[in-house]
Amino acid sequence: MSKYWNERIHKLEPYIPGEQPKDKRYVKLNTNENPYPPSPKVLQAIRNAADDQLRLYPDPNTDDLRATLAEVTGLTSEHIFVGNGSDEVLAFSFMSFFSPDRPVMFADITYSFYKVYANLCSLEANIIPLDDEFKIPVDAFCKPNGGIVIPNPNAPTGRDISLSSIRKVLDANLDSVVIIDEAYVNFGAESVVPLIKEYPNLLVVQTLSKYSSLAGIRVGFALGNPELIDGLNRLKNSINSYTIDRLALAGAKAAIEDDAYYQQVADKIITTRQKTTKILHELGFNIVPSHANFIFITHPSFNAETLFYNLKEKGILVRYFNQARISNYLRVSIGTDEEMNQFVEAIKEIIKV
Amino acid sequence: MSKYWNERIHKLEPYIPGEQPKDKRYVKLNTNENPYPPSPKVLQAIRNAADDQLRLYPDPNTDDLRATLAEVTGLTSEHIFVGNGSDEVLAFSFMSFFSPDRPVMFADITYSFYKVYANLCSLEANIIPLDDEFKIPVDAFCKPNGGIVIPNPNAPTGRDISLSSIRKVLDANLDSVVIIDEAYVNFGAESVVPLIKEYPNLLVVQTLSKYSSLAGIRVGFALGNPELIDGLNRLKNSINSYTIDRLALAGAKAAIEDDAYYQQVADKIITTRQKTTKILHELGFNIVPSHANFIFITHPSFNAETLFYNLKEKGILVRYFNQARISNYLRVSIGTDEEMNQFVEAIKEIIKV
Repeated sequence: MSKYWNERIHKLEPYIPGEQPKDKRYVKLNTNENPYPPSPKVLQAIRNAADDQLRLYPDPNTDDLRATLAEVTGLTSEHIFVGNGSDEVLAFSFMSFFSPDRPVMFADITYSFYKVYANLCSLEANIIPLDDEFKIPVDAFCKPNGGIVIPNPNAPTGRDISLSSIRKVLDANLDSVVIIDEAYVNFGAESVVPLIKEYPNLLVVQTLSKYSSLAGIRVGFALGNPELIDGLNRLKNSINSYTIDRLALAGAKAAIEDDAYYQQVADKIITTRQKTTKILHELGFNIVPSHANFIFITHPSFNAETLFYNLKEKGILVRYFNQARISNYLRVSIGTDEEMNQFVEAIKEIIKV
Repeated sequence: MSKYWNERIHKLEPYIPGEQPKDKRYVKLNTNENPYPPSPKVLQAIRNAADDQLRLYPDPNTDDLRATLAEVTGLTSEHIFVGNGSDEVLAFSFMSFFSPDRPVMFADITYSFYKVYANLCSLEANIIPLDDEFKIPVDAFCKPNGGIVIPNPNAPTGRDISLSSIRKVLDANLDSVVIIDEAYVNFGAESVVPLIKEYPNLLVVQTLSKYSSLAGIRVGFALGNPELIDGLNRLKNSINSYTIDRLALAGAKAAIEDDAYYQQVADKIITTRQKTTKILHELGFNIVPSHANFIFITHPSFNAETLFYNLKEKGILVRYFNQARISNYLRVSIGTDEEMNQFVEAIKEIIKV
């Protein structure tokens, strides 16, 4: 608290990201990072960009990167906004499209930053409970609202949502913006990017942090009709003209161009997810069906919070949310096969199987 | 315009940055970039950071970089906030400390982004006219207000403001935050960082974009009392936990550590500024005394806008502001000696001396 803070700052409830521990080396399965390195072409592109040109501002309009994205998505550059990570893109979207006069809608169990953004923008939230299997109740999202945000697949559950369900939400909300947060879409869910030309109210948000192994360079996108993209640009250009640095621009472009590499990586992660799921099932865990690079698990006989601390003692970090309905669950990022073996062995020791 | 934009977006008046032309190679003296490359140690640090670790999120708290900054400034890490360029830091500061119930104060001729931020935050602006020599009228800033922002040296004039004048403004405004924007301070003005421990209402904003030749990596700082820094962190963590990427963190740290290199570069720029000033004076220009890496010039017999276009035709980009009181001025960034010779030769041809 400070007399120098204005009212906005006093009432904020900031997001708390997953730990980035410095005390020792952990098997880090807590922030859904990709366990495999970025494409070698990405690293080379960044090294090449580390030259005297860094004295110059980057392109404020990220034209080159947007052209590359346009090519792979089948959209035009006018459909694309680039931000400093998808969190910034989401924050800007809340600030641009959602109105204080009608409540915004999101699920009770979902990415917890949405609530932070709603609070930041002084928006009332109509929080929609997921059903008992953590599925999105589509009908509940078809009521009047000031904006909707749904991740596909959802986090921290990993459950995906079908194209036809999203279509239903879009059809019912032609006057408000529906954000589909596709941070994890490339691990087995279906993207709604092909619906963008059909639905002016659809904004798809993606990131390089997960699928592209580039959490460290902070690049996210919004894909949507040019009016929405214009709105985001108006906001960005009222805050910071140059949000994406030259190194991130170079790395991002190389990542988009080397999808073959990343598709292989995603396939490995999906295989590891399936193997891990099978083993945990045999150990008595219930696992929410996942289309993401993490799994959401619970055990009928073992307390999740205790498991979390026991795992941490053994040098394995996962994510625990002390929150209604999911306080007996753990979210476990999918690491390499070796990391998941370590995780499984630790679990076995803890539950003494 | 779009029915999907909320009221905030409709009323924005975004900033328009200086051209980053792609049509041909210009002598680029229009966005106050440093004409000399970053320290070789910076480039090496960035190349070293372009490794497999990019798959991981950066440190959201930028601890390592803040520790380095604390060392060189004589402050503690708690006095330091790191943002994605000083523009983001300034925007966050407006959003955190300035209140809609009292007008914020800044000069009529100053960095034009301040007006954009005021508009973004729905703040009334009490715009203070500079005197006829473009000096800050200190007394005018000693009246009740909801916040103050003053660049030292000012842009686009280049004029500095004395420590004692800033002290007077700080003393008269103990209940509101006074931002001193020191983007250009290292080219000959005096920093007020030593006043931070004395004045809880002082926030100093700095950047690596000018002095450190790193406009391309987007790093800026706020230095101030820990309550102010807390406020900025609350806002940042309600928008985007990870604003500074791993490459920028590595480069920034190396830049702060290699001040010897940058001091030499600044000395060269100051010498070139003095030489250029002398020549332009001989050509009949009036030059506002500059403590920055740019000069603000006017000629009694030649129209500035025409000069701007004539220079552009000759491949030389400078900045022209079509704005009351300064519409017959040009802002010219200080380039290398060779670039300034090209500029002077072009001017001579245009005015036919």
